[in-house]
Amino acid sequence: MTTAANPRIGTISQFDGQTITLNGWVFNKRSSGKIKFLMLRDGSGIIQGVLVKGECNDAAFEGFDALTQESSVVVTGKVRAEPRSKIGYELTVLDVKPVQIADAYPISPKDHGVEFLMENRHLWIRSQRQWAALRVRSEIFFAIQDFFRTRGFIRFDPPILSATSCEGTSTLFQTPYFDEKAFLTQSGQLYGEAGAFAFGNIYTFGPTFRAEKSKTRKHLTEFWMVEPEMAFAKLNDVMDLGEAFVCHIVKHCLDHCQKELVILERNQKELETIVAPFPRITYDEALKILEKRGHAIPWGEDFGAPHETALGEEFGKPVFIHHFPSSIKAFYFKNADDPNGEGVDHDGKYALGADLIAPFGYGEIIGGGQREDKVDVLERRIKEHGLNLKDYQWYLDLRRFGSAPHAGFGLGVERTVAWVTGVEHVRETIPFPRMINTIRP
Amino acid sequence: MTTAANPRIGTISQFDGQTITLNGWVFNKRSSGKIKFLMLRDGSGIIQGVLVKGECNDAAFEGFDALTQESSVVVTGKVRAEPRSKIGYELTVLDVKPVQIADAYPISPKDHGVEFLMENRHLWIRSQRQWAALRVRSEIFFAIQDFFRTRGFIRFDPPILSATSCEGTSTLFQTPYFDEKAFLTQSGQLYGEAGAFAFGNIYTFGPTFRAEKSKTRKHLTEFWMVEPEMAFAKLNDVMDLGEAFVCHIVKHCLDHCQKELVILERNQKELETIVAPFPRITYDEALKILEKRGHAIPWGEDFGAPHETALGEEFGKPVFIHHFPSSIKAFYFKNADDPNGEGVDHDGKYALGADLIAPFGYGEIIGGGQREDKVDVLERRIKEHGLNLKDYQWYLDLRRFGSAPHAGFGLGVERTVAWVTGVEHVRETIPFPRMINTIRP
Repeated sequence: MTTAANPRIGTISQFDGQTITLNGWVFNKRSSGKIKFLMLRDGSGIIQGVLVKGECNDAAFEGFDALTQESSVVVTGKVRAEPRSKIGYELTVLDVKPVQIADAYPISPKDHGVEFLMENRHLWIRSQRQWAALRVRSEIFFAIQDFFRTRGFIRFDPPILSATSCEGTSTLFQTPYFDEKAFLTQSGQLYGEAGAFAFGNIYTFGPTFRAEKSKTRKHLTEFWMVEPEMAFAKLNDVMDLGEAFVCHIVKHCLDHCQKELVILERNQKELETIVAPFPRITYDEALKILEKRGHAIPWGEDFGAPHETALGEEFGKPVFIHHFPSSIKAFYFKNADDPNGEGVDHDGKYALGADLIAPFGYGEIIGGGQREDKVDVLERRIKEHGLNLKDYQWYLDLRRFGSAPHAGFGLGVERTVAWVTGVEHVRETIPFPRMINTIRP
Repeated sequence: MTTAANPRIGTISQFDGQTITLNGWVFNKRSSGKIKFLMLRDGSGIIQGVLVKGECNDAAFEGFDALTQESSVVVTGKVRAEPRSKIGYELTVLDVKPVQIADAYPISPKDHGVEFLMENRHLWIRSQRQWAALRVRSEIFFAIQDFFRTRGFIRFDPPILSATSCEGTSTLFQTPYFDEKAFLTQSGQLYGEAGAFAFGNIYTFGPTFRAEKSKTRKHLTEFWMVEPEMAFAKLNDVMDLGEAFVCHIVKHCLDHCQKELVILERNQKELETIVAPFPRITYDEALKILEKRGHAIPWGEDFGAPHETALGEEFGKPVFIHHFPSSIKAFYFKNADDPNGEGVDHDGKYALGADLIAPFGYGEIIGGGQREDKVDVLERRIKEHGLNLKDYQWYLDLRRFGSAPHAGFGLGVERTVAWVTGVEHVRETIPFPRMINTIRP
């Protein structure tokens, strides 16, 4: 078993001067007369192995030519500090035992079309950029859990299958469920609210689904969301928490994903500027900025990709937009009468929502706000939105039995990974992306 | 916002002697002449507040009688060490401001039927035992991620929706997916294998689905699984890793969930005995034990609940059973000819599988083993199992391009939480359980 104690390339400095055995795959190779070079990858990194005739086992030296790209091998060698190496070490190879000689590997350094790479996603993930992006993803998952646990938030997993929908029914996947039908969740928020009243502060963290036909670089049909929900909290608490959360994620990646960000050629200087405070502007103020930048929209319309990009450009760092027209927000938002208002117990013109727009066109990465906490107002909204009141009785109960101001948000994990890693399309931020035309492999 | 710095009951010792404000709910209350007692819960714990006439604000003292169970309140008081308190502290209440006076709360200390409690799951989670079990769940989620990250495993999220099934098609949920159909995953293993060949060691961690009609205390239709997969690993590595993993989870809960385990009346002495090594016996040896204990089954039959319980009783701690008849294991297992064999490249009588049976009737919590790594053998197996070869070409590719021995397992999270907390039924180990007749709330 490859445990922390076993030699791996990712922790090779621990084995300086030692003769070790590495299990891995042939990433690349070249010959130069009596010296042969083997680029070995083991999943934790890549190291250059040097085979010198006489020094290396004869059979291994002769067998070198038969090793194809991605062949699996067991390599024994001596770890040697090498300043010219990217990782600071090389391996003086003593022996190479092939495990399986790979068939002709379909992915070469030449440019392949995206369609071909997506069909070979199970192999593409071995390529450097994909490998690096998914390792950053793994670290971001850790950073998320770490952030909330440290702050006393309880992880609260909402159901994936449910008879109730969260945000309207037009983009729902559904499955027969014994004698009934069930929807795949679009958001765990409604359940998270129940959790907040039981645990104070919770976060949900799981896959969510949207049967959207959008073919953009920001849309997946299956994506992970993390959704904190806080009892006794208001709109400003959403922005405070979201700001601290995003800064924590970026800092964690800068601290723990150095080699991955280098492979991805991510501008780290840019990431270093992502520190609190983030600008906070109202929707009304955003409209003025958009007008100034030549992207005017009428009051009451939602932002599209060009508007989000323009707002990102204006500030060069994540920006919160709050106090949206209530007409473009879901039924559960608490409303206010004025664009800086604190909430009213009737239908105001503004929803106490706050979205965080990432810079550089990565779009909305946080959407959240304060929830309506009055049972009569909420009941009326549910009816007005044409939803079935019976399905929401349990949700209304949360306002009947110890209601309180409460608020929360959802952060889209893949968009966040895309922004932090700088990859162009969210399909490269999840092992096996699901999109309108992509359900295999 | 309630951050770590804000006063919460769970960290009340930090505020000894201070006057603080707590947001919470009325858990219980009683009067005794000029003294009134308020049991306040805030989601992180319960504290007794003492209202003494003259000391407490008059309006609050007079308003006490109107406070119903689960009413939301803002309480100001002075934290005072109190040896008779379970948490070591009481609150001398100076003021109570009601936020919402709750309607008559449907859950009382008297016994309710399970059906009623499940219908009110959104409120039931506020009850002490449910609250405690779900907090342990949250800590176990942390322990899982912590265990694998520390050992260099990359988190690798497999898709939920897929055109390919993992373990046969009889218990699959399915949804229309634009012009196709998609299944809900039963296991992320096949995808995890692709991840192991890219990252060396990975783990998947997400919800999985089985449309099983089983109505037992161990079955949910939607449950979380964690599935590590290791390249260059064999059957024994599965048992080594599984053993270390389960010990880590139990120890983490003993270290971090003291108050929850006390509420759950869990026998902690019993949990303290869960240390390595766990017994490891072959299926053939297990049959002899079952015969001795009056639960004989013929060779080639799988264990049922009574057999798992009997095996748990024999050892009183988790026990690995390995080398199962290949006929009762899935197509992807590597086989062996004899009950202690290391694997052969043809159809042996034994599958290199290893299951971990938890004691006290909690059943199988780990199922895993070594995978077939030869492309021709695997291809034949897929055909023999009546599966569509075309769907598995990507999976066969993993054996064409750098195949290597590899192995892994799946741990059922809810069964593990049930065993650690000692709750009888897995439905109490997840916020909103899904079972054959349960899809609401």
